[in-house]
Amino acid sequence: MKVLVINCGSSSVKYQVFDMEDERVIAKGICEKIAVSEGSGHIKHTPQNGKPTFNEDIALPNHTVAIKKVLSLLGSEEYGVVANLSEIGAVGHRVLNGGPKYATSVVVTQEVIEDIKRFIPLGPLHNPHNLSGINACFEAMPGVAQVATFDTSFHATMPEHAFTYAIPYEYTQKHNIRRYGFHGTSHRYVSERAIEKLGGKPNSRVVTLHLGNGSSLAAIRDGKVIDTSMGLTPLEGVPMGTRSGSIDPAVVEFIADKEGFSVGEVLKVLNNESGIYGVSGVSSDFRDVEFVAGDQRSPNPDLAEQAADPELARRSKLALEIFYYNVAKIAASYIAVLGGADAIVFTAGLGENSPETRERIIAYLAAFGVTVNVEENAKRGEIEITGADSKVRVFVIPTNEELVIARDTNALV
Amino acid sequence: MKVLVINCGSSSVKYQVFDMEDERVIAKGICEKIAVSEGSGHIKHTPQNGKPTFNEDIALPNHTVAIKKVLSLLGSEEYGVVANLSEIGAVGHRVLNGGPKYATSVVVTQEVIEDIKRFIPLGPLHNPHNLSGINACFEAMPGVAQVATFDTSFHATMPEHAFTYAIPYEYTQKHNIRRYGFHGTSHRYVSERAIEKLGGKPNSRVVTLHLGNGSSLAAIRDGKVIDTSMGLTPLEGVPMGTRSGSIDPAVVEFIADKEGFSVGEVLKVLNNESGIYGVSGVSSDFRDVEFVAGDQRSPNPDLAEQAADPELARRSKLALEIFYYNVAKIAASYIAVLGGADAIVFTAGLGENSPETRERIIAYLAAFGVTVNVEENAKRGEIEITGADSKVRVFVIPTNEELVIARDTNALV
Repeated sequence: MKVLVINCGSSSVKYQVFDMEDERVIAKGICEKIAVSEGSGHIKHTPQNGKPTFNEDIALPNHTVAIKKVLSLLGSEEYGVVANLSEIGAVGHRVLNGGPKYATSVVVTQEVIEDIKRFIPLGPLHNPHNLSGINACFEAMPGVAQVATFDTSFHATMPEHAFTYAIPYEYTQKHNIRRYGFHGTSHRYVSERAIEKLGGKPNSRVVTLHLGNGSSLAAIRDGKVIDTSMGLTPLEGVPMGTRSGSIDPAVVEFIADKEGFSVGEVLKVLNNESGIYGVSGVSSDFRDVEFVAGDQRSPNPDLAEQAADPELARRSKLALEIFYYNVAKIAASYIAVLGGADAIVFTAGLGENSPETRERIIAYLAAFGVTVNVEENAKRGEIEITGADSKVRVFVIPTNEELVIARDTNALV
Repeated sequence: MKVLVINCGSSSVKYQVFDMEDERVIAKGICEKIAVSEGSGHIKHTPQNGKPTFNEDIALPNHTVAIKKVLSLLGSEEYGVVANLSEIGAVGHRVLNGGPKYATSVVVTQEVIEDIKRFIPLGPLHNPHNLSGINACFEAMPGVAQVATFDTSFHATMPEHAFTYAIPYEYTQKHNIRRYGFHGTSHRYVSERAIEKLGGKPNSRVVTLHLGNGSSLAAIRDGKVIDTSMGLTPLEGVPMGTRSGSIDPAVVEFIADKEGFSVGEVLKVLNNESGIYGVSGVSSDFRDVEFVAGDQRSPNPDLAEQAADPELARRSKLALEIFYYNVAKIAASYIAVLGGADAIVFTAGLGENSPETRERIIAYLAAFGVTVNVEENAKRGEIEITGADSKVRVFVIPTNEELVIARDTNALV
């Protein structure tokens, strides 16, 4: 069976097509600028079978038109990867928040659709668009099974003391205000790989660091999450590209008072203008901030002026140090509550591609006897970077959320 | 010299008089209900020289009248402890927030008064009353030196990456929005005692747990704080009696939206109706919550009904577990960033008096090789509770903030 995996944003649809025989990606692409303005739209579609890439502006007035166009590309002579669209037996959708209800992926029924709607307040920036994708597929591919894989599901095993905030309990119950955690599909993929590498060790203790533009950590005992750093929303936890991570909740009131902002305006600042961007004043891209901080490994002529400004260089260094430090503090707390760790796993953009980031974070974990092999750490791909004398194994495992969604979809249909 | 130490609240003045010859407390007391209503007021004054306690309602229309009355008691035949009031050579005041400026105690000058005023936004519930106390003493004891000891000063050694929030840097600079930390005088007292007990070990690594109705932790390297859990305000960090501690900042917006609250109203909920009180629905007093959770060591007939309610018992257990768990996570992160610990110190109401609390928190730190001696842990006072095989020494040290203030005052005058 072939499975189409879809990740639907407000104006975009990312997709991959898997042949589940060998779990190979046979096509992938992205639709952008959907309904952004009159006539806007662009599709980049890349077949993996040697056929040419389709890369053109094309009017995409809504998600259904985009999905229909993708389907026609998938079945076309020139850009296609299937002889007949009926080969696509199911669609897997990434959905942000399954609320307290969904601990696994599910086949989408009317009840599931109602729940995704009901949980929109818990994922206002994503759930509505995830739903648009599901509705578009129902319309464009009637009769084909749709599966929802929630970003929150893998964290559903957290014990109550880890997911409950110390706020009035009526709010927890009435409004479902609790820690959900996100990036669950990624934490699941890389922790399962790590446990394989540990030889399937029973009661394994794994700490996963998903470090990208958004970042979260998870503490995983015997394959089950016992804690994670994102919370009710993806704002909580470590500082990120533009998100503040955890701060004194009183800062919200303080900024509102000082700047004359509504609480919604403050939250926009904390989500979009904070993190390493806010501290450095340079960029939300860690590579840019690293360069301005004095790292010469990937020089960027566009930032030469900023790099020459001692104050921006100082702030960039500070931003990175705040990031390493806070990631390490959470990692340390997870190693502790797991009673020690068998493996630490780095993944996602920064976790996979920045040896510096890995080295700096591990340096803070010396008290646990974790060390890194500097030579291995410089390599790319799925690698083990455990130091010779390390008491904990350290892996870099490129994440693959789409594959998890495809597998779940295949298994359920 | 005798030193009067004052801790001034909105309607109260707590005081102690020290004889600095031998650092003995020669009198202590509290003025309450100051200016609460027409004619309200009460003083309980307890001389430590065998004279009777004064314990009476007396009109206290303002702090100055209260201080004057205390002075007259201190010099009186019946309740006095000094032959002549001129023996009181200085007054030490507890002041909440010294902002980014004061790293030590200081003699109060006009400039200091202006600064305490200027930092009122950083300590709106305390700084104004601390200032009332200072002004009252200037009026009641003209010519006597006043010293301010700030709750924030001991934390002034934190490195920038530990005190800077990942918010837009202009807010950090313009509004002084950063981590300050509180309970500094307590963390200082108990860490200094712990370092003495370590034989003055150089580069000592000490984690202090001030656990009371308000709770905070500090990581202390070589006698200097490198991190602490309270932030811009005392709301951040671990869950407390009625405070939520750290939560997803987005929860502020979520509660505001769902309940139709202003941001100020949400912050009141997070400060006054959350923590173990909010989760348990029983009490902000840990002893009450322990009893309802099933702990039979201090039965409380007033709570018999609550204790018989299985849902309240469940919530009480959950509230305590959330507290232990979050305290342990922060303690673990501090042990890590210190590169290991030489000593862990428990202090304040709960830290000094609840063996259960200490045992449960230490159980979460097993990965660091910390263990507790159960027999010693059951004792009271200043005790060492290090387990036989523990790699880290564990102390219980009753805090004494007033003594630190008296010593600083004595040294400065």
